[in-house]
Amino acid sequence: METKKEEKIINGINIDQLFKTIQLIKENAKISKFKFRAANHWVHGTHCRATIKDFYGALKEDNSRPPVDYDMDEPPVLLGNNEGRNPVEYLLVALSGCLTTSLVAHASAKGIKINGVESRYEGDIDLQGFLGLSEDVPVGYQEIRVYFKIDADVSNEQKEEMVRMAQKYSPVFNTITKSAPVAVHLEK
Amino acid sequence: METKKEEKIINGINIDQLFKTIQLIKENAKISKFKFRAANHWVHGTHCRATIKDFYGALKEDNSRPPVDYDMDEPPVLLGNNEGRNPVEYLLVALSGCLTTSLVAHASAKGIKINGVESRYEGDIDLQGFLGLSEDVPVGYQEIRVYFKIDADVSNEQKEEMVRMAQKYSPVFNTITKSAPVAVHLEK
Repeated sequence: METKKEEKIINGINIDQLFKTIQLIKENAKISKFKFRAANHWVHGTHCRATIKDFYGALKEDNSRPPVDYDMDEPPVLLGNNEGRNPVEYLLVALSGCLTTSLVAHASAKGIKINGVESRYEGDIDLQGFLGLSEDVPVGYQEIRVYFKIDADVSNEQKEEMVRMAQKYSPVFNTITKSAPVAVHLEK
Repeated sequence: METKKEEKIINGINIDQLFKTIQLIKENAKISKFKFRAANHWVHGTHCRATIKDFYGALKEDNSRPPVDYDMDEPPVLLGNNEGRNPVEYLLVALSGCLTTSLVAHASAKGIKINGVESRYEGDIDLQGFLGLSEDVPVGYQEIRVYFKIDADVSNEQKEEMVRMAQKYSPVFNTITKSAPVAVHLEK
């Protein structure tokens, strides 16, 4: 009886597929080029709604996912009505997901079994920037602090290395810390 | 009979409250300091869950909002199972909400009535960065393009000015285009 070779899966990450993807990209770098997209519709006041649906990657358009909406609004102290969490909070959501996924993926590639990962995020914004009251105050986040707790049977040095890998390879972390150009156009 | 003075509300933005807030901040700049927060819990593989709840601002902690969860996951082509949209897509959601809110708030402060605002976002990521296959490829977004459609009875020049104000005063736009420091700690 033939035994089908089982795929190597660590922490829920399919390592065989990961290394197969790496090999395919080495053969054709175009496979690695992705385009992610969103649309936004203003509802009322500080309330708007974003929608995520299609993306491009691995040489093709992917329209297979149903659209998902995300409502955004400000709390009353920021002139809103809590119809959703606010955009700067969504930025922390994005950062948290990206650091966590990068940490788990890169640890899994090294064969490290993880039992749990928790993290907390806090960022400082001074509204004087948004309100145009001071040119000296940054409009964006002044600083973001992140605290990771990792449950895995490895040394603290290895956990520190996992946290370094997460930062080195996280697209959202690198977009925020190294900046990215954003070209904004008006359609007439 | 006394008539109660009505509050000035444009596009759903309470302009009286906006200018009152600006006056309060001019008297005490500490009012403008906000801290936004998120927590993240790794679920399995590329699936994790972020939670938004409390924040600090206007001199006090705000615990009044119920927690909201955001699931993040990758599509199958990126080793996930579509249990949520992915972190780099959430970054576009955050950017879309912040540019839209900034545009509407600053136009409202100038008394411009808006009928509608729609926008589209597309960003390029080359996975060679995330996978560590090339030191020359940025890990984060290489470029993000934004397209606004504004329905308002104003000239194209005024619409262009609205789009410029959105960029000048949006915290997420400025975090991405100017960068922000992110300090990541391991809790032992």
